[in-house]
Amino acid sequence: MLMHPDRLFPCDPKTREVARALYESVRGLPIVSPHGHTKAEWFARNDPFPDPAQLIVQPDHYVCRMLYSRGITLEDLEIGVQSKRNPRKAWQIFAEHYYLFRGTPTRIWLDQTFENVFGLKVPLSKQTSDAYFDTISEKLQSPEFLPRALFDRFQIEVLATTDSPLDSLEHHQAIRESNWKGSVRPTFRPDSVVDPDHCGFLKNIEVLGEKSGEDISSWKAYLSALRSARRRFKTLGCTATDHGHPTSATADLSEAEAALLFDKVRDGRADASQRELFRAQMLTEMARMSLDDELVMQIHPGSARNHNRVLYERYGPDMGADIPTPTNYVEALRPLLNRFGNEKKLTVILFTLDESTYSRELAPLAGHYPCLRLGPPWWFHDSPEGMMRFRRRVTETAGFYNTVGFNDDTRAFLSIPARHDMARRMDAGYLAELVVKHELREDEAAQLANELAYSLAKEAYRL
Amino acid sequence: MLMHPDRLFPCDPKTREVARALYESVRGLPIVSPHGHTKAEWFARNDPFPDPAQLIVQPDHYVCRMLYSRGITLEDLEIGVQSKRNPRKAWQIFAEHYYLFRGTPTRIWLDQTFENVFGLKVPLSKQTSDAYFDTISEKLQSPEFLPRALFDRFQIEVLATTDSPLDSLEHHQAIRESNWKGSVRPTFRPDSVVDPDHCGFLKNIEVLGEKSGEDISSWKAYLSALRSARRRFKTLGCTATDHGHPTSATADLSEAEAALLFDKVRDGRADASQRELFRAQMLTEMARMSLDDELVMQIHPGSARNHNRVLYERYGPDMGADIPTPTNYVEALRPLLNRFGNEKKLTVILFTLDESTYSRELAPLAGHYPCLRLGPPWWFHDSPEGMMRFRRRVTETAGFYNTVGFNDDTRAFLSIPARHDMARRMDAGYLAELVVKHELREDEAAQLANELAYSLAKEAYRL
Amino acid sequence: MLMHPDRLFPCDPKTREVARALYESVRGLPIVSPHGHTKAEWFARNDPFPDPAQLIVQPDHYVCRMLYSRGITLEDLEIGVQSKRNPRKAWQIFAEHYYLFRGTPTRIWLDQTFENVFGLKVPLSKQTSDAYFDTISEKLQSPEFLPRALFDRFQIEVLATTDSPLDSLEHHQAIRESNWKGSVRPTFRPDSVVDPDHCGFLKNIEVLGEKSGEDISSWKAYLSALRSARRRFKTLGCTATDHGHPTSATADLSEAEAALLFDKVRDGRADASQRELFRAQMLTEMARMSLDDELVMQIHPGSARNHNRVLYERYGPDMGADIPTPTNYVEALRPLLNRFGNEKKLTVILFTLDESTYSRELAPLAGHYPCLRLGPPWWFHDSPEGMMRFRRRVTETAGFYNTVGFNDDTRAFLSIPARHDMARRMDAGYLAELVVKHELREDEAAQLANELAYSLAKEAYRL
Repeated sequence: MLMHPDRLFPCDPKTREVARALYESVRGLPIVSPHGHTKAEWFARNDPFPDPAQLIVQPDHYVCRMLYSRGITLEDLEIGVQSKRNPRKAWQIFAEHYYLFRGTPTRIWLDQTFENVFGLKVPLSKQTSDAYFDTISEKLQSPEFLPRALFDRFQIEVLATTDSPLDSLEHHQAIRESNWKGSVRPTFRPDSVVDPDHCGFLKNIEVLGEKSGEDISSWKAYLSALRSARRRFKTLGCTATDHGHPTSATADLSEAEAALLFDKVRDGRADASQRELFRAQMLTEMARMSLDDELVMQIHPGSARNHNRVLYERYGPDMGADIPTPTNYVEALRPLLNRFGNEKKLTVILFTLDESTYSRELAPLAGHYPCLRLGPPWWFHDSPEGMMRFRRRVTETAGFYNTVGFNDDTRAFLSIPARHDMARRMDAGYLAELVVKHELREDEAAQLANELAYSLAKEAYRL
Repeated sequence: MLMHPDRLFPCDPKTREVARALYESVRGLPIVSPHGHTKAEWFARNDPFPDPAQLIVQPDHYVCRMLYSRGITLEDLEIGVQSKRNPRKAWQIFAEHYYLFRGTPTRIWLDQTFENVFGLKVPLSKQTSDAYFDTISEKLQSPEFLPRALFDRFQIEVLATTDSPLDSLEHHQAIRESNWKGSVRPTFRPDSVVDPDHCGFLKNIEVLGEKSGEDISSWKAYLSALRSARRRFKTLGCTATDHGHPTSATADLSEAEAALLFDKVRDGRADASQRELFRAQMLTEMARMSLDDELVMQIHPGSARNHNRVLYERYGPDMGADIPTPTNYVEALRPLLNRFGNEKKLTVILFTLDESTYSRELAPLAGHYPCLRLGPPWWFHDSPEGMMRFRRRVTETAGFYNTVGFNDDTRAFLSIPARHDMARRMDAGYLAELVVKHELREDEAAQLANELAYSLAKEAYRL
Repeated sequence: MLMHPDRLFPCDPKTREVARALYESVRGLPIVSPHGHTKAEWFARNDPFPDPAQLIVQPDHYVCRMLYSRGITLEDLEIGVQSKRNPRKAWQIFAEHYYLFRGTPTRIWLDQTFENVFGLKVPLSKQTSDAYFDTISEKLQSPEFLPRALFDRFQIEVLATTDSPLDSLEHHQAIRESNWKGSVRPTFRPDSVVDPDHCGFLKNIEVLGEKSGEDISSWKAYLSALRSARRRFKTLGCTATDHGHPTSATADLSEAEAALLFDKVRDGRADASQRELFRAQMLTEMARMSLDDELVMQIHPGSARNHNRVLYERYGPDMGADIPTPTNYVEALRPLLNRFGNEKKLTVILFTLDESTYSRELAPLAGHYPCLRLGPPWWFHDSPEGMMRFRRRVTETAGFYNTVGFNDDTRAFLSIPARHDMARRMDAGYLAELVVKHELREDEAAQLANELAYSLAKEAYRL
């Protein structure tokens, strides 16, 4: 077997026993996935997934970045290769270098996917590469491995995608109109139309205007177009927005100042600090709209995108070269919080790539402001050690009830059960420690295990 | 029982056994409390404490901030409410939401206080709210629960309060003149007269001058008034000063420069950076005075006070809305250390809310400069995990003997035994690990347990 | 016995058992020491080491800084004392204060050295001070304790020193010409000739020019002289360079800009930011040269050197007063990485004194760029807890294979076996945890234990 039933539990036998029991009580709960990057199209069309290299290796930047760091080229992995593809060969390269993932969560997600989804029992290696390729390829063609069948088999209660306001959402529409009962919901991610540094921003806001029947020549019309786009998303089940800004800066300009700034941005005359100010103001505008339409707001700041210039110019974004940066929340969020921080109707979920802010900034903020909640450990920190650091540094100040359960945040659909399973195991381990140290009673831990695995996410995301 | 005798000890049975033995050797030691926020008036007047809501809920910003973060209003808790109070109802709201504190140190402090001080044995909840309210209310009226009786019962050897130079210290005087033998000492906290941004600063220094018979029109007279105030504190048993500046900036201006800066500050003409420079210079002046009068200096930097503007305007300070900020020590302390860092007669105790500085800045600084010591984990970090992070990141570079034992830092008098108990348990657990890993011998660990629980604080604070 | 055979292993018995087995499989491996500060002269001349105080106390800034922090003066330790020395007395002071090192790695390194090298079995203390002094003094005079004999006894396969480009390397030459087979190699550390703030920089580059027969009046000639110095080092076995800049800033100027900047620096007209830019450009130049001559590049940024002005003025550098500072890598390294980051032939090993960068910056960078590797925990973090923090925060993102094994980084030659032993024990413990948590198979852990202890260092440093 690839995966041991006790994997990821604490080493101490007594604590492990308590963790095992807590985990058993939540392992069968449905999956609530309120934030991720799967494609609605998969479930709308329900076509078979492609070959193993195209499904598992090429789109997963966790996988590509590690291979790339040790000298495998993206050409070797057939990324961007359109013709004369040889996916078996790309898969072989991956298999030969699978040892690089020792000690990483990617290894655990993949092994669990290999075993639980495809029934593979021997480790992936140079020797087993072809057997893996053949087994996976074959199964992917069977009806049980079509996207909707897997969705149901994975017991996904709800799955949120992440979408641009410019997206037609046709696939979401199609799913709703189909006779399939799976709940797939869009998330409103407006970076492309609120961040002046976003590639194609000026064109994007024009299209946004057209879509909403607004002439985006004024601040007022621009806001109105955004409001209208949010309504469109809400109609298709959207309950949340998401904001991937470089920093967490917010602003609280007067309407006149904001209108003037918009004009500058729209004319392409805004300098770097004015563009940052515009992004900052837009977070506050989004919060204001959320107070009206009740969409939950997610802020994901602090990634230096496309750090590797050569790679970006050749392959575009999301090639594993986004690097976290030091992030400040205390001063940056002050304008938004001064305006809306005490609103109980508003929910703002904060994420970070800078773990030094967990105990210094995020837990104290979330442990005070009624509108704030903390998202789970994100991206580079969505790992066994990362999850433990999050709980250890956040809980004592913010408690459990200012956190929002787990996000898998993935485009690797097949790994969703493995990712939620890891979170459930780690939370069971953390709770077990508190029980064994007599900081929590067993009944409290059992209730919390359920809440962390299931109900906190439903409640926070209003699902 | 609410509290298990093995609570907070390490999970591993052998390590727990060693921890238990170390803890047993220190659990009965008297409490030395060299830094806190209780009121001398309680012990001077020895009146009964008020009702449970007013005693336990309303003044405790750890409690209020968590409740507030989950939608309880300060009105619900009857904070600022003067008439038609219904403390039983406020207590009920607290009891119903007591589950929010799961996993926090507040829960442990409160449970231990409920059980050890009031003899309560069932968990606080909606169902037990009234029974708690009645039991606590009744006991508080009995002679055994008067402030002095509790002080003695808690085995407090010495308790320091924190006081403004403008305070008459009449209650400290009254205690000294009474026939009660409890040792309650003031601490000299001059923020209100050395920080130009402090509310009422100009008025404050005028009053300071009047109290010392100095006309505060010159730098020299101002310093002389401060010296005189320190003397007054010392007469009543004060052994330490405390400085709660926004940053740890220090300066080392010439006398002429300092005098000029003082004039600007006094005339209200100093801009933000000059006001910061003044605070910085005042830390160095305080160190200079400490070299003369031997008061131990405590620096508590890095809190963004009153982050929630609306709440501050309505309820004033200390409502749970102070948020830590990134704090630098290496460059900030350089001027003071260049001037006095090598003085063996000076003791400067550093605290932080920015845990990233433990191993990067504070341990290296304290592991070199003769005048520096590290205070215990502070405020948001005064918790089981916070205490372990402190020891793990500080000890290997600064050793144990550059730390100063525990501070309870609390205004919640009834929780003082529980807070010291938590520190003793966590230190016992940390030492036990070192023993089980054969990094310390058992006799060394036993000696250290005693020093961390008792003698280091006495020595560092010159008590 | 001073040292328990199970020291430093995890507390949990099962995990300890796995750790012990992993450790047993690597404890006998030869020592590869690719970065350190021993002196080639010791092995060239093979004279006996001096008295215990001069050998063990005075040159070790870990030892001196702790003693100094608790009020021992450098005079007490006879540092800088030339005449009328009484090393037995200095040793006595050290022995009396040996308790200060409880909980520090220095204590473990020293105890292991005392026991394994000198056969001492009772703890060092006031009482045993003279016995220690006599035993060590006597043994140091015997042939088995001469530098070459210890080198062989320690099973050192290769030892790198750190050397200035101005060094004649005569001792390295002499070792090569001797009939002794020990491998001692120089490392090219050009700070003194690439950092305009380095004491004597202008004189240094003149000497550099003379040595290479270049007239250092132009940028071109300067680079040529550096190239020639690197060649000279390479001839004597050098495989790496080392760069101890205040920050990790890099730059990528055009040749014309760089030439102009060099002229300014050479004329002493460069201001602080231009001097920083020059250092930044020189890192990129060094990378360019490494692409040609294949020397591995090490970057050690982020130490505020000589923080204690009084001590520096009196005793010079390396007196234990270097303090870490917050360090940024993401923006700072961008220019160098944009230029050479994708070169597989280049190896750049990054170190840090700012642990907050492990998971936020360093692991993501090394987990992407082909040229980057992470050096082991450095200096203040080269300790049991420091090593665990490094593995826990780095492995999940960068894996094991983007790290480079252990560096002892020491001038304390006698402690080299103890330092490598500590690293092997800690890595065994970390791997054992992964095995017990079923994240790694036992065969994988065994292979990794060998790689972390031995082969990764050889491979990364091209030894």
